[in-house]
Amino acid sequence: MIAILAHHAGEEKLQAVVHAIEKRGLQAHVSRGMDRIVVGIIGKFDPSFSEQLRQMSGVENVVRISKTYKLASRDFHPSDTVIERKGVRIGGDALIVMGGPCAVESKEQIMDIAARVQQAGAHVLRGGAFKPRTGPYAFQGVGVEGLEWMKEAGERYGLLTITEVMTPEYVEVCAEYADILQVGTRNMQNFDLLRKLGTVRTPVLLKRGFSATYEEWLNAAEYILAGGNADVMLCERGIRTFETYTRNTLDLAAIPVLRQLTHLPVIADPSHGTGRRELVAPMTKAAVAAGAHGLIIEMHTDPDNSMTGDGVQSLYPDQFDALMRDVKQLAPLVGMTL
Amino acid sequence: MIAILAHHAGEEKLQAVVHAIEKRGLQAHVSRGMDRIVVGIIGKFDPSFSEQLRQMSGVENVVRISKTYKLASRDFHPSDTVIERKGVRIGGDALIVMGGPCAVESKEQIMDIAARVQQAGAHVLRGGAFKPRTGPYAFQGVGVEGLEWMKEAGERYGLLTITEVMTPEYVEVCAEYADILQVGTRNMQNFDLLRKLGTVRTPVLLKRGFSATYEEWLNAAEYILAGGNADVMLCERGIRTFETYTRNTLDLAAIPVLRQLTHLPVIADPSHGTGRRELVAPMTKAAVAAGAHGLIIEMHTDPDNSMTGDGVQSLYPDQFDALMRDVKQLAPLVGMTL
Amino acid sequence: MIAILAHHAGEEKLQAVVHAIEKRGLQAHVSRGMDRIVVGIIGKFDPSFSEQLRQMSGVENVVRISKTYKLASRDFHPSDTVIERKGVRIGGDALIVMGGPCAVESKEQIMDIAARVQQAGAHVLRGGAFKPRTGPYAFQGVGVEGLEWMKEAGERYGLLTITEVMTPEYVEVCAEYADILQVGTRNMQNFDLLRKLGTVRTPVLLKRGFSATYEEWLNAAEYILAGGNADVMLCERGIRTFETYTRNTLDLAAIPVLRQLTHLPVIADPSHGTGRRELVAPMTKAAVAAGAHGLIIEMHTDPDNSMTGDGVQSLYPDQFDALMRDVKQLAPLVGMTL
Amino acid sequence: MIAILAHHAGEEKLQAVVHAIEKRGLQAHVSRGMDRIVVGIIGKFDPSFSEQLRQMSGVENVVRISKTYKLASRDFHPSDTVIERKGVRIGGDALIVMGGPCAVESKEQIMDIAARVQQAGAHVLRGGAFKPRTGPYAFQGVGVEGLEWMKEAGERYGLLTITEVMTPEYVEVCAEYADILQVGTRNMQNFDLLRKLGTVRTPVLLKRGFSATYEEWLNAAEYILAGGNADVMLCERGIRTFETYTRNTLDLAAIPVLRQLTHLPVIADPSHGTGRRELVAPMTKAAVAAGAHGLIIEMHTDPDNSMTGDGVQSLYPDQFDALMRDVKQLAPLVGMTL
Repeated sequence: MIAILAHHAGEEKLQAVVHAIEKRGLQAHVSRGMDRIVVGIIGKFDPSFSEQLRQMSGVENVVRISKTYKLASRDFHPSDTVIERKGVRIGGDALIVMGGPCAVESKEQIMDIAARVQQAGAHVLRGGAFKPRTGPYAFQGVGVEGLEWMKEAGERYGLLTITEVMTPEYVEVCAEYADILQVGTRNMQNFDLLRKLGTVRTPVLLKRGFSATYEEWLNAAEYILAGGNADVMLCERGIRTFETYTRNTLDLAAIPVLRQLTHLPVIADPSHGTGRRELVAPMTKAAVAAGAHGLIIEMHTDPDNSMTGDGVQSLYPDQFDALMRDVKQLAPLVGMTL
Repeated sequence: MIAILAHHAGEEKLQAVVHAIEKRGLQAHVSRGMDRIVVGIIGKFDPSFSEQLRQMSGVENVVRISKTYKLASRDFHPSDTVIERKGVRIGGDALIVMGGPCAVESKEQIMDIAARVQQAGAHVLRGGAFKPRTGPYAFQGVGVEGLEWMKEAGERYGLLTITEVMTPEYVEVCAEYADILQVGTRNMQNFDLLRKLGTVRTPVLLKRGFSATYEEWLNAAEYILAGGNADVMLCERGIRTFETYTRNTLDLAAIPVLRQLTHLPVIADPSHGTGRRELVAPMTKAAVAAGAHGLIIEMHTDPDNSMTGDGVQSLYPDQFDALMRDVKQLAPLVGMTL
Repeated sequence: MIAILAHHAGEEKLQAVVHAIEKRGLQAHVSRGMDRIVVGIIGKFDPSFSEQLRQMSGVENVVRISKTYKLASRDFHPSDTVIERKGVRIGGDALIVMGGPCAVESKEQIMDIAARVQQAGAHVLRGGAFKPRTGPYAFQGVGVEGLEWMKEAGERYGLLTITEVMTPEYVEVCAEYADILQVGTRNMQNFDLLRKLGTVRTPVLLKRGFSATYEEWLNAAEYILAGGNADVMLCERGIRTFETYTRNTLDLAAIPVLRQLTHLPVIADPSHGTGRRELVAPMTKAAVAAGAHGLIIEMHTDPDNSMTGDGVQSLYPDQFDALMRDVKQLAPLVGMTL
Repeated sequence: MIAILAHHAGEEKLQAVVHAIEKRGLQAHVSRGMDRIVVGIIGKFDPSFSEQLRQMSGVENVVRISKTYKLASRDFHPSDTVIERKGVRIGGDALIVMGGPCAVESKEQIMDIAARVQQAGAHVLRGGAFKPRTGPYAFQGVGVEGLEWMKEAGERYGLLTITEVMTPEYVEVCAEYADILQVGTRNMQNFDLLRKLGTVRTPVLLKRGFSATYEEWLNAAEYILAGGNADVMLCERGIRTFETYTRNTLDLAAIPVLRQLTHLPVIADPSHGTGRRELVAPMTKAAVAAGAHGLIIEMHTDPDNSMTGDGVQSLYPDQFDALMRDVKQLAPLVGMTL
């Protein structure tokens, strides 16, 4: 940590800063530049002290040198985290594909789709039983019954299942039925939810908040890791920008950046990341080429009649098949195995 | 609602669209342009149908003509909502000021600050007992004990109190102690929390999500209103942009825009909106001039030792006094009474 | 300037950095933290060297401590710049108002509008003779003839005139006719244009690029100042964000921020900053309350038939009159004189 | 084009709108919905009329149905544009690679780099002789002499050359020396420059403005096409977002979107798009997988001593070689030939 003082701060203010640092049991190294004084602070990181320093008279800025997250950092855990569940590995050099509808609508629907997901060679069945919707009058999901259908479909077709959990009180019931719990973009900083997810032993897929920085995202993962749940994967699903042609701007650079900063698996969601069916295939291929550990793709056997309106970004089953074939060809070129 | 078809869509696709509309008991009006066909849809609004249409073959776009929120709309409720609590009115031509620390730290701290808030002529004491923090290792608030201190301070100094609630299970206990419940920026789309807030009769201050559009924000308010709680106020607290000098970009145009679109009171938060103490006074005055119904301002008797680091954006008590005097002069020029 | 090395960089890489610093005639101060090494660099600022350092092996980051602009900085020129032209003062405690149409359309139009601008008590007539338009098929302005009409209108009604210049080769002819030259948002980093404007002695109003940071904006001003033209004013006209209800997001915090960072006058443009007529009055008042030195407002005697489509954000003359009266009342409360 | 009126607009205002439409020789189709009236306008597109309508009393919104650009649209020109220059084809199924330094620094430097570009199997040598720089004190390029060195290097190694042109008056001299003229991100809406580029017969690579929408970008291309120069290619180079870890956010969805909307070749710039050397290879591969027609990549034989500071995003020659090999493997999987 470094504190920067204005050139005109004067000796008294500088000494107050040095004193405050030493009072915390830390060391201060003073460097005097031509128009700024820099004080290096050596010792254990403490965010509240950084903030206190920033407020001291004469201090222009405090620059953090170390990272705010630890357990999520590759410095702390140099090798890739590989999550294993019912024989399926997520992370490392395994490329995983999750497919399915935005929302579970009926038992028949999810069974039909599960059959097509399995047939195409994917590993995980996605489907929301509880749906976060912008307005209160839109379809909000079928609830717990949907979890039961998902579980049955997963078992029948040998697929893992992933479903979204929106509030702490539903974590346990969702964990009972699903193999992976998804945190949606609007809940990335729902800290009570994250804390609760730290207490279970079900893997968590943490979607990036649609305006979150990489650092905030890794800090959100840190909440779960710090609670004792080590099986966290991160999912890039597009950020909000000024461009309105696409639903979001899929930030694929997040993939190589996160592979560098963290040991956790990185998944891409080209469906929400673009919001347009015709862009899903090229962006899926781009995500694989950029080094993603996995993909989560919306597929629906009858997207034109989906209940959430996300049908517009869902692939038809045949498109999903074709895309899986392309991904299989592409994966080995970037050192991944499907 | 309008559906737009490409010029080359052809009669068959057009008829399929018309048929789908009529099957829902709605009317279709077809207009043929030089290179697009426009189908007007007449009847009751239904978001899922709009989404279904968008997915039909040949349809290029579906444009919503009506708004997605109803109870929050000024069309529905033309006169200003005025919230009344213990004789204090929020909304209409009353200008209200809320002041206090980011976080409740101790009983003594909140008592001292409450005294200064009252002395300055403000109406509401703010203070967080539960704090949403980016990382798990930062100070997370003092919890329920802080709510008790707040209540006692409010009663002693004749102030209303406002505090943040982060999760559905704490809504009831917070409503027991505080006069106004605050939903923070990260929870604007925590729909389970919003639904729960619809069931209590305590007024709610709903902060704008830091990347939310006006429409999403009004839809979030709609969740609370639709649950039966009519006392919602909206708080602009800055949005995230590419500019990093300020903590957020305070979007003051939100004030006149919302006064037009909705009947709910509009509050401004220049403290989080800028993140810098020296910008709080000019932006407070700007918010009043733009027509805000209220202000929520961080003030601390010892900001240099605040526990959250938000001290850097907190006014000293004397600055708060001076600002209140300026606001009092300004208010009548825009038709407001402090 | 500070260079930060990873803890595992090793002595050899550190010595290479120190050596590079000393080779440039600068001094290096090394501070060793627990997981980072910080090297302070003391001596004259040199941006290309900062960039070279950043590229050296082992260097994680280089943090600039000093500012990149000098002549525009308040450190360099502590008192407010006051620009004077034909007896009108811009800057300091004088509040100036510029009004007029987006585009000059005809001699009669500009004469009529000038009469109303003067009648309302404003000081400067605005009007574009050359118009930057998104597409090539839109109205591109009337050209040099418009400059002549502007000049005549300014002289007849005792108003200064301001007009936009889009390309270096037109700087001289525009400077011949107009009292102030405007650089539009799309040209804020048209460096050849800025360099050319440094060579004339006509004041320049430099609009903020719609996605420019404060620092980039001040650097753009620095180009003009470095060329020898000291009469630069900065105009906040809204930035691009994800919100589409307003044309732009008017960043009023820019006003107090710039008044702190620079000595140059700061002007606000609530017309382009919102793109909606009904928002111009509240945002004008907010800009004054935030401390603007001036306002540039679109007014048109027949906005419903304006040729550029910006009529939708133009005030009617009576609205402009009423707003001027409000501004006159507001100005003294923030220490300004209209 | 569609005009939308509020339900309470009334018959008189509706008739005024219909009348205005018919006065322009266009047809009006009226559809009355439950709370809005929609007027379809049929006939030739006219942007200024759309704007006039939007300003009429009672009109809530005007929605454009047709596109604002014509020559750039795939509707107008369904097959891919293929630009040919000295036997090199750009567009269609040919994948092209441009490599070289950010800035031309010396004759020796550009010769060395050209040798490595050719050796790696790339087609075009990039290098800036005129450099747009944020501040006036940074290195501004070597000027015309650099163009001569580029030309000589291109001829010696059988490479096309591309260089940036910043101002209309340099278009002719740049066109004399270089095979392709580049318009930088800050000049995407420098309309005088675009118009001038429409008058030459040298291909133009038009970089996306760092906050430009797809539509604005295509309109900028339209300026060049409308001037008579049909050889335009579009280059995605990253947009500005709130994320600061990367220099820009490379919006790879632009590639499939533009391939759909326009017939012009689409190039990706992973160097400026990320600003970090270690991200260039994964993002290059992602761009190829997304369907790019070409790549423009910074490569430098001595990036640690580059004069612009962009060395930090430049590949070393061996990295460039390795990346070319990867691209060669990847291209056929997406139907492209290197």
